[in-house]
Amino acid sequence: MVSPVGISMLGSGNVGGGVVAALNAASNRYERSVGRPLQLRQVLVRDLARQRDGLTASQLTTSFDDLISDEGTQIVVELMGGEEPAYEYIARALASGRDVVTANKEVMAKHGAKLLALAAEHEVRLLYEASVGGGIPIISPLSRDLLANEVSALTAIINGTTNFMLTAMADGGVDYKDVLAEAQRLGYAEPDPTADVEGFDASYKLAILCGLAFGLELFPEEIERQGISLLASQDFIYAAELGYTIKLLARARLDDGHLIASVCPTLIYHDEPLAKVDGVLNAVEIEGNLVGHVLFEGPGAGPTPTASAVLADVLALARDIVADRRPLAVTPLIPAQVLPSASHKSRFYIRLTVPDQAGVLAQIAGALGERGVSIASVLQFEADDLDDAAELVLTTYLAERGAVNDALKQIEEAQFVQRIGNLMPIAGLGGAR
Amino acid sequence: MVSPVGISMLGSGNVGGGVVAALNAASNRYERSVGRPLQLRQVLVRDLARQRDGLTASQLTTSFDDLISDEGTQIVVELMGGEEPAYEYIARALASGRDVVTANKEVMAKHGAKLLALAAEHEVRLLYEASVGGGIPIISPLSRDLLANEVSALTAIINGTTNFMLTAMADGGVDYKDVLAEAQRLGYAEPDPTADVEGFDASYKLAILCGLAFGLELFPEEIERQGISLLASQDFIYAAELGYTIKLLARARLDDGHLIASVCPTLIYHDEPLAKVDGVLNAVEIEGNLVGHVLFEGPGAGPTPTASAVLADVLALARDIVADRRPLAVTPLIPAQVLPSASHKSRFYIRLTVPDQAGVLAQIAGALGERGVSIASVLQFEADDLDDAAELVLTTYLAERGAVNDALKQIEEAQFVQRIGNLMPIAGLGGAR
Repeated sequence: MVSPVGISMLGSGNVGGGVVAALNAASNRYERSVGRPLQLRQVLVRDLARQRDGLTASQLTTSFDDLISDEGTQIVVELMGGEEPAYEYIARALASGRDVVTANKEVMAKHGAKLLALAAEHEVRLLYEASVGGGIPIISPLSRDLLANEVSALTAIINGTTNFMLTAMADGGVDYKDVLAEAQRLGYAEPDPTADVEGFDASYKLAILCGLAFGLELFPEEIERQGISLLASQDFIYAAELGYTIKLLARARLDDGHLIASVCPTLIYHDEPLAKVDGVLNAVEIEGNLVGHVLFEGPGAGPTPTASAVLADVLALARDIVADRRPLAVTPLIPAQVLPSASHKSRFYIRLTVPDQAGVLAQIAGALGERGVSIASVLQFEADDLDDAAELVLTTYLAERGAVNDALKQIEEAQFVQRIGNLMPIAGLGGAR
Repeated sequence: MVSPVGISMLGSGNVGGGVVAALNAASNRYERSVGRPLQLRQVLVRDLARQRDGLTASQLTTSFDDLISDEGTQIVVELMGGEEPAYEYIARALASGRDVVTANKEVMAKHGAKLLALAAEHEVRLLYEASVGGGIPIISPLSRDLLANEVSALTAIINGTTNFMLTAMADGGVDYKDVLAEAQRLGYAEPDPTADVEGFDASYKLAILCGLAFGLELFPEEIERQGISLLASQDFIYAAELGYTIKLLARARLDDGHLIASVCPTLIYHDEPLAKVDGVLNAVEIEGNLVGHVLFEGPGAGPTPTASAVLADVLALARDIVADRRPLAVTPLIPAQVLPSASHKSRFYIRLTVPDQAGVLAQIAGALGERGVSIASVLQFEADDLDDAAELVLTTYLAERGAVNDALKQIEEAQFVQRIGNLMPIAGLGGAR
């Protein structure tokens, strides 16, 4: 008689439901590839009374202590989300000798290095493919398939909610508030959309990717972060006029030993592969010294794509358990030397509302020029909703963000402009720094 | 003292040079990630006299017997290409208890199942990430990251030479012969281009992918294969007129237990992700029941991208050797039930040179209609180089290839047409079958 590989699960929301459905539907196939059946033993839930597809009442528990004392559980799958109590439960599962699979980007971004060290200490494994990019294989390719490379840069669209919104704004000339309401209606955005639209979610994921790509420990709060809520429909029109699309890009690169990491709405040339990643899709582009550029694209969220990644990790662990394979050594992360955002060099897009009078552009150019910021192009548009005013869109040559910020502050204080509408980096063409 | 992990290499061409250069340049980093240094012990070459960068004379040998009797060699890297003697050497290396890494698509396509069984028998591993898609991680994602999925279809551009040629033909209105000469001048095409332009190379790679994606053993000769040499510059103009791009697509899908596999120049809607994969890039799109669609894109050939994939496998094996991890069980492949190409259902593009006279279209439509092939659209073009003749481009609704072939044969025999210029499937929109 073959004893099964025992799995218990923390949380039973949408992704959990996807995992349960797949475990039930494909049990024979999974048994063939693992060599033993997989058995779902216990599921930690909040409400015992709620009916859950594919689970019997005896599999449900509200007590983590009960779940973790189950001797038959070899793999713990954490799908609760949020920092606590998920972090505590993952740590306790690892310390109790269980392998753990998690989809939790927040826990991995904030506590990943500690948890991976804890796993190594207890000779167990912590896998987290589902924490970035939903169903797209990205953690494992970075850990294994690109390991021979020195990674120099990564550029990613890793938040489906904002990419859906930006795609709709680029297509339709709709404004931010309307598209947010639409995303909420479709279930792509939360009632409180802050984590997505302000870039927190993407910064968690970027921190995780930096650990894998560069071997560097980067905390989410060290990442320059700019949300999409300042974007207006005209930004998309002006960007298109200049040949660009606007995407919330998560970017990281090494420059002379410093890590430059940012999550910002960014102008990207319309012909770049990432410019064409639309809707809720995610994509990650990696630049390595051997491979050049590789791109991974697919569904970045959703119950079944996320279940695909969770179960890939579960199957990998189960295969290792059956073959009695020990965990590989984990190379500890080195703290990142993070370049402050004021020193980030980029080309920039600046939208200003200016009085419709002579001399304004000269004053603005002067303020920028004093700080070494050269203007690359100027577009002036009539503003429908403003009298005696116009919208001015400037792009700069390569400049430091701090210098641009200082110049804009001076421009604002000197009242050369009525309003500073938006400031965004432009990717590529010498602007990647 | 830490003993190194010993590696020997068969062949020292462009890819071999890339591997040697990377092993030398990144030796410290590789040692950190493996836990022991990697040592390049012997390299099998044809000509001992030729100077090779990064290798000393004492590392070179012309004798496989000498190389395989080196006790310090734990991993054998096969980079010779071609079927023999590569197949024999891989088999002997596995039988002697060495792990093997190969970039050899021909050997893996024709003998992969046997070699993987041989590796399992000797409790060693055979890895072959570099055999498909150059530096793009695809073998390992299919083996591990998408394992929870039932894969239903894969669509790929996996020959960089032909993709370079087709991109140039689509861009420039140049003809097949000129673009082939250009590809040969740039080193993208061999002096004898048959393996690339007739689709053999892509069919080897598709056979390998089918083993991983579907668990099915498919031999290259079972794949419907059509080369690109019949393509004329006007096909690209007509395809664009209809909204399509022409790509050499390698496709496979399961339909009711039958495997449908083909390598054909194919019309693909211009807005599809694969339609935008240009030049020497490769891309593989996988459709799984959980993940939906995922796309992997990157450089499909070249010394350093291929070295990236070879060294990923080498590092994975070396890490396993250091951790004393045993090989995972390999699920044996099941022979594929291949649907004959005459039964492949697709929409089709047909280009005919017809006499410029009344009634011709009716006769052609009649011959097709008798066999259940319905015409979806008709375009007629003036042919510059023909008197009293025109070019007719037909697209069909979903039809069996056999029926279309039979109708074209009848049309040709009845001399309704002067010449059948080209016949290609149209991907998607009900045409994937």
